[in-house]
Amino acid sequence: MIKVGIVGGTGYTGVELMRLLARHPLAKLEVITSRAQAGTGVADLFPSLRGLVDLNFCEPSVDAYRGCDVVFFATPNTTAMTQAEQLLEAGIRVIDLAADFRIKHIPTWEQWYGASHVCPELVAEAVYGLPELNRELIRNARLVANPGCYPTTVILALLPLLANNLIDPGSIIADCKSGSSGAGRKASIDTAFCEITESVKAYAVQGHRHLPEIRAILQTIDVDAELVFTPHLMPMVRGIHATVYADACGPADDVQDLFEDFYRDEPFVDVMPAGSHPETRSVRGANLCRIAVHYLAPADKYVVLSVEDNLVKGAAGQAIQNMNLMFAVDETTGLAAPGMVP
Amino acid sequence: MIKVGIVGGTGYTGVELMRLLARHPLAKLEVITSRAQAGTGVADLFPSLRGLVDLNFCEPSVDAYRGCDVVFFATPNTTAMTQAEQLLEAGIRVIDLAADFRIKHIPTWEQWYGASHVCPELVAEAVYGLPELNRELIRNARLVANPGCYPTTVILALLPLLANNLIDPGSIIADCKSGSSGAGRKASIDTAFCEITESVKAYAVQGHRHLPEIRAILQTIDVDAELVFTPHLMPMVRGIHATVYADACGPADDVQDLFEDFYRDEPFVDVMPAGSHPETRSVRGANLCRIAVHYLAPADKYVVLSVEDNLVKGAAGQAIQNMNLMFAVDETTGLAAPGMVP
Amino acid sequence: MIKVGIVGGTGYTGVELMRLLARHPLAKLEVITSRAQAGTGVADLFPSLRGLVDLNFCEPSVDAYRGCDVVFFATPNTTAMTQAEQLLEAGIRVIDLAADFRIKHIPTWEQWYGASHVCPELVAEAVYGLPELNRELIRNARLVANPGCYPTTVILALLPLLANNLIDPGSIIADCKSGSSGAGRKASIDTAFCEITESVKAYAVQGHRHLPEIRAILQTIDVDAELVFTPHLMPMVRGIHATVYADACGPADDVQDLFEDFYRDEPFVDVMPAGSHPETRSVRGANLCRIAVHYLAPADKYVVLSVEDNLVKGAAGQAIQNMNLMFAVDETTGLAAPGMVP
Amino acid sequence: MIKVGIVGGTGYTGVELMRLLARHPLAKLEVITSRAQAGTGVADLFPSLRGLVDLNFCEPSVDAYRGCDVVFFATPNTTAMTQAEQLLEAGIRVIDLAADFRIKHIPTWEQWYGASHVCPELVAEAVYGLPELNRELIRNARLVANPGCYPTTVILALLPLLANNLIDPGSIIADCKSGSSGAGRKASIDTAFCEITESVKAYAVQGHRHLPEIRAILQTIDVDAELVFTPHLMPMVRGIHATVYADACGPADDVQDLFEDFYRDEPFVDVMPAGSHPETRSVRGANLCRIAVHYLAPADKYVVLSVEDNLVKGAAGQAIQNMNLMFAVDETTGLAAPGMVP
Repeated sequence: MIKVGIVGGTGYTGVELMRLLARHPLAKLEVITSRAQAGTGVADLFPSLRGLVDLNFCEPSVDAYRGCDVVFFATPNTTAMTQAEQLLEAGIRVIDLAADFRIKHIPTWEQWYGASHVCPELVAEAVYGLPELNRELIRNARLVANPGCYPTTVILALLPLLANNLIDPGSIIADCKSGSSGAGRKASIDTAFCEITESVKAYAVQGHRHLPEIRAILQTIDVDAELVFTPHLMPMVRGIHATVYADACGPADDVQDLFEDFYRDEPFVDVMPAGSHPETRSVRGANLCRIAVHYLAPADKYVVLSVEDNLVKGAAGQAIQNMNLMFAVDETTGLAAPGMVP
Repeated sequence: MIKVGIVGGTGYTGVELMRLLARHPLAKLEVITSRAQAGTGVADLFPSLRGLVDLNFCEPSVDAYRGCDVVFFATPNTTAMTQAEQLLEAGIRVIDLAADFRIKHIPTWEQWYGASHVCPELVAEAVYGLPELNRELIRNARLVANPGCYPTTVILALLPLLANNLIDPGSIIADCKSGSSGAGRKASIDTAFCEITESVKAYAVQGHRHLPEIRAILQTIDVDAELVFTPHLMPMVRGIHATVYADACGPADDVQDLFEDFYRDEPFVDVMPAGSHPETRSVRGANLCRIAVHYLAPADKYVVLSVEDNLVKGAAGQAIQNMNLMFAVDETTGLAAPGMVP
Repeated sequence: MIKVGIVGGTGYTGVELMRLLARHPLAKLEVITSRAQAGTGVADLFPSLRGLVDLNFCEPSVDAYRGCDVVFFATPNTTAMTQAEQLLEAGIRVIDLAADFRIKHIPTWEQWYGASHVCPELVAEAVYGLPELNRELIRNARLVANPGCYPTTVILALLPLLANNLIDPGSIIADCKSGSSGAGRKASIDTAFCEITESVKAYAVQGHRHLPEIRAILQTIDVDAELVFTPHLMPMVRGIHATVYADACGPADDVQDLFEDFYRDEPFVDVMPAGSHPETRSVRGANLCRIAVHYLAPADKYVVLSVEDNLVKGAAGQAIQNMNLMFAVDETTGLAAPGMVP
Repeated sequence: MIKVGIVGGTGYTGVELMRLLARHPLAKLEVITSRAQAGTGVADLFPSLRGLVDLNFCEPSVDAYRGCDVVFFATPNTTAMTQAEQLLEAGIRVIDLAADFRIKHIPTWEQWYGASHVCPELVAEAVYGLPELNRELIRNARLVANPGCYPTTVILALLPLLANNLIDPGSIIADCKSGSSGAGRKASIDTAFCEITESVKAYAVQGHRHLPEIRAILQTIDVDAELVFTPHLMPMVRGIHATVYADACGPADDVQDLFEDFYRDEPFVDVMPAGSHPETRSVRGANLCRIAVHYLAPADKYVVLSVEDNLVKGAAGQAIQNMNLMFAVDETTGLAAPGMVP
């Protein structure tokens, strides 16, 4: 049984980790911390977990995690970097669901996150936890940087095209639509029901933190290109729909086959039949990225449609997938539930 | 392994049965029928089930279900009564998620459902599948009438009060709020997104089919009373919130304890702490009825708040709970997932 | 031209006042104050008003309102009572959209609002701004207490029944469903999109501030009764649906006629045909309370369905209706727009 | 007073025409037809119009429209082309809200709409009713082809860039997000609440009818280019958000000024300040296209964000704007209401 700790469990990725761990047969939540809610029962804050999680939130400290095999950071950015080293030294493996260890180039990270990084050497060691890209490295990692929600959908949409040199990397446009849970669980007028429902808007058109993350990961596979990334906020809770455009390079008769072959053995990437349009709800609550690829002959462009649940394959589910790899249990353990439709 | 058939699997209760059976370790879906979709792949109609259900819909016929241990009818009312007898004769047990076998008094049923009943003798045999009321009978039943969604929440709210003679049965008012999935999956202007979202309305104030069902079941515990039942349509998919009012009879110092005691051993009824207000989302996707009881001293009335997911504890989940009882597997098998929040 | 000031215009009732005033041909917004947003352009905060409102928010002060004929308080409770006297002394009439002047009995008000009232003598003078009840008093009022959103729907549902002695006042139950905008525009986890959407819950079952308000107003028409008032939160922005139950007293053959007669000359109460079920969206954005009355013979009870837009007839629209009365312009001026459907 | 007829008034554009005409001081609805609802009261089908529209739907016929100055076709495609000629001969001007007269090249129209056109000569005469492009032609038109909802937002986003030769037309990508009301008011599983809410999907990626319309209109201003147009369905009722990408040609220091200058005199196009992100709700119910232009230096591309209410500036509001032009009344008459927020 894998003994699990969670740091900062009062946000949406925290409660989603608990929802998924509640039915994971080989992992057990031992401790969950929250400075603000220390002493509160988890199930008092989240009644959906009544009868399934009997813990109280406790004060964060290295001692609190003693006995854990792995600790998930479900905290805001810049928290994990201050605590990861102590945990690793105590022999506890770490999966950070925030952004502290995702970007290797420290000045880039510091520019976008507005902070000085306190442990650059751990950034160098950390493995970017996208199993479809780094499965073998993840198995042996002490420290995993769990990918951002947008980067997961966009990168998985692009990998087969880039691996087969089918597109001009300089032409990539990722027009992304996200549910509101991506903004986190916090007191804010901007995320109020009356502000979000029945409306759509773009945001951060001039630059979003997931743009340098996508660029950095593409560089690890030798793709160096500016790309356009435009996030939009949708009136829904869960789900990201990435619509990725790129100019075609050379013939593409078999792009459907290429995608199917590329992801044939991946348990959590589903390539739909030619001509399909995936819906975000088809993966609601499921650890899955569902993809359809289109070639538009008149414009000689590819359009890849890629959907995920931002809290699952885009966060907590992928984190558990990484945990499964790190502890050598079947990668799909606890993650096989289908999407909830309707 | 329990071999399962589903009749009429293209509606919301059908797809919900498949979602839940996909993670049931002791049951296997063998056949699913649909006259309209015969030949279509289940996963083509419901992409959320891609990789989990490999069957095609087939034409309904008794032969189609040969080899099944149990068949669920996820059909409109008046279908199951025409086919149940043949299945039972073939040694197949039947769980009807529609209303054909819920009301013992045939003239009442015929009045509310506008049809002649074709097998009154099976109505007499059928067991009303509310485990909290009829657990032992269900274990041995050949034919189970799965309760309606509204009656499940309302009856579970009332049972502890009625069992302890705490209320005047003639004063009961059940003001109920339901999500749109209760109306089924069908082509209709009335259930269109643009008609439902951002609006609330009552319907069938003068009489809804679940009113005689509630009355009939209360009569089985010797409570005979007119009650007022007012359903309302909410702009959401899943969930019923019943707000049940009744005049108090005599002192009620310990109503919280009475509720907790009454449901202490029930795996799928959760009595919240005194003063609570359950949210429907806390049971979204979960087989659970969550209840809070309030006593209003100035008016000397009880108010019981009772929530469920109408597709789970109100339909498909309760049907699987009944199946578990009928086949002597642990009642909670395949039904332990927590509600999906957010 | 009526010169208008608004105190505290950054909330939903404030922006709704501006939306409605923007097309009022006989009123002109002269000044709008907000301590937090002083200096900000109104249209920068609310882009829907670009081109229609050219004012900046300014610091609140009596001087700021000099020249106004009327000032609306769209502020939290306990603000208006500290400023109303100065404005009245300066000859400016006041309409308070909050609760400071609604309840004549000061100890009751102080108990429910948790504050000492600073101007009880103005409470005594204030007129409760429900035109259907107090039209003539409103015309001459210096100070109007604009009714709460719930009380407006509930009282309008009850008036014809009470006026005709058709019900037992002690049996009244008002089960009310409200959209989220009733909670105001504020930074709060509880009102976040991810917390509100796709869920329903009751709240304040043990007592909500609108309960003593309803009781107090009913007492002004000589009805003294405990009543049960249960508010519920709906996953929508605008709208209240009150479902009001009461035991019938004596025969009721003509209740439909009684309702139609009672409201025949009311421009903003619409009695629907017998058997109807009003939808909240039918009054979305409109200054209208739409009502249907049902008599349930088996239970000998009345059920009145009453809907309004909580921001319009339940707040800003009714406030402008009161202003029209106070300034002797046609009561419907600027308020004739139909509900927005879909 | 302009005498107005509406053909096919039971859809969302029909009821929206009525909502807007109800407060138009210079137009009066005289007749509304519907084969399916002939004899039904308009306000019985749409209770939001109770007290404002006293007409019944009547059978469509040329006689029915006698006495009208203008008739709006709020019908499915291919209806207006069978009736327009008779109306024009009777001296009645026609505004078609469907697509029968939008595309001059008949073979293209016939290919996309799957029908033979019955009056090509009227197509030649018809004026495309985008006032920002064809204001003077509209004034004198007998027959106006009201633009599609997507083309309105996309073309208004592109006009300033194309007019100033700032972009490569061959690089245009229009990623568009629409509310569900664009699919019309009809009985269909695909548009059911439970199918639409809490989900996002692309559709018609391989080709949507509004693509040839956009291309055809751009050709009228001498721009001939393939463009990529990807519509997406959003879980909301009203609103289109177009995100339009194009490669920059040459320097662009003053693109903000160019947009502001281009639309300075347009009453219904609002250019937001540099760096803005328009929300669809800011124009909900309003006849307005709100635009923000961004230049992305790293990728040397423009991104234009353009929002409208698809039922107003994208349909009924623009139709009334055209009517105002055709009858020489102030273009903004009846169309000045702000967006409804929240």
